[in-house]
Amino acid sequence: MNHQIEVCFSPAVFEDFFRPELNVVVVDVLRATSSICTAFINGAEKLIPIGNVEELKGFVNMGHVLAGERNGYTLDFVDFGNSPFNFTRDKVENKTVIYSTTNGTRAIQMASRCRNVIVGSFLNISSVCNWLDSQEEDVLVLCAGWKNRFSLEDTLLAGAICEKLVETGHFSTICDSAISAIDLWQLAKSDLMKTVEKCAQRHRLKQKGLDDVLEYCFTPDITDIIPVYGNGVLKPMIF
Amino acid sequence: MNHQIEVCFSPAVFEDFFRPELNVVVVDVLRATSSICTAFINGAEKLIPIGNVEELKGFVNMGHVLAGERNGYTLDFVDFGNSPFNFTRDKVENKTVIYSTTNGTRAIQMASRCRNVIVGSFLNISSVCNWLDSQEEDVLVLCAGWKNRFSLEDTLLAGAICEKLVETGHFSTICDSAISAIDLWQLAKSDLMKTVEKCAQRHRLKQKGLDDVLEYCFTPDITDIIPVYGNGVLKPMIF
Repeated sequence: MNHQIEVCFSPAVFEDFFRPELNVVVVDVLRATSSICTAFINGAEKLIPIGNVEELKGFVNMGHVLAGERNGYTLDFVDFGNSPFNFTRDKVENKTVIYSTTNGTRAIQMASRCRNVIVGSFLNISSVCNWLDSQEEDVLVLCAGWKNRFSLEDTLLAGAICEKLVETGHFSTICDSAISAIDLWQLAKSDLMKTVEKCAQRHRLKQKGLDDVLEYCFTPDITDIIPVYGNGVLKPMIF
Repeated sequence: MNHQIEVCFSPAVFEDFFRPELNVVVVDVLRATSSICTAFINGAEKLIPIGNVEELKGFVNMGHVLAGERNGYTLDFVDFGNSPFNFTRDKVENKTVIYSTTNGTRAIQMASRCRNVIVGSFLNISSVCNWLDSQEEDVLVLCAGWKNRFSLEDTLLAGAICEKLVETGHFSTICDSAISAIDLWQLAKSDLMKTVEKCAQRHRLKQKGLDDVLEYCFTPDITDIIPVYGNGVLKPMIF
């Protein structure tokens, strides 16, 4: 058994990686996929990712929890913004959360033509890798990036996932972006916060006073829950 | 004086980096930009990059030298393919070369709305960096990649260019792709051929028996010539 693992650095080039049989892990470390995992840790029943702000507005006053941001700023008609610290148990337990972000939710929707789409973060990385290993299919890590650009923090998580899968002996790669993600992860992992300090998104968040989530978003294995996407909805799976 | 340097990993996301005032260096190490530099080393008068195979066909029997490939295979109506070793003095001296490749020529044309567009390779790297430093403008390294995908060999050259420009003290970067390109270059440079061995394009070339150019394409500073793009034509500039 030898399956391929590839990494796509930007939703803008997803079509060049697309194959219907792929298992796709969407990563958006700062902050969408960390927030989605946190919502399920705190008992959310389901989460509906919405790409479009206008579409999100259609869910106002329907009894759901609304969360969303554009360019780091909380939308004015939602319950709260994009920080994982907002998705607290008292807000989301047993609720349906409708959620839209600049980059992450679009990437999740984009991948929906593939075999399986799951949400990855450092918070659930081992569970994600164990499940992918159990599926015996090729894997694509889809980085949400930032407005189509390469994002270092997503690349580090992609590299960490690739390293774990290659270590199983069941996966290998000939994909330059996967090889480079592994190299960048191995270079960074002994002092991760020093590397995170270099990330453009870390500076964007700091400018807006939103960088309190950094350590949390890079903490591995807080949960076993894997958010799985199907029919437009994310639901929690424990593996 | 502090100018920004950024790296764009794929022509597919060029629009997200575009600013008219940029100086753009296009890199396609294996093999287009190495071949273009070689054409001028061997005395070509000018070189016209053509994105489209049909358009290239229109130049047949017009007295020019035609060169081109698609997916590594030489087109059947041209004088020769995409190896820099084809652009010999007896073929190109004082000639106009019409040239089309899978990725490289498209990237050059795409960048033409920017202030200046030059062609970079390891062969002319110091001259390229000295010229960029003299221009006192922000710089974008545009990697031609492979069919919109990230390419490790182009990234290594981008990292080497960024490292040199940052070392001048006149450039800095907050661009995640530039930061990562520098990291990957610094990781690779002490044993460059070992890293090149990992590149997907190196495997593609090997399968087609076209990998004899590897050492040549990674040899720094064979020439001072910088190919400059303007009005659809590349001409040699010595700096």
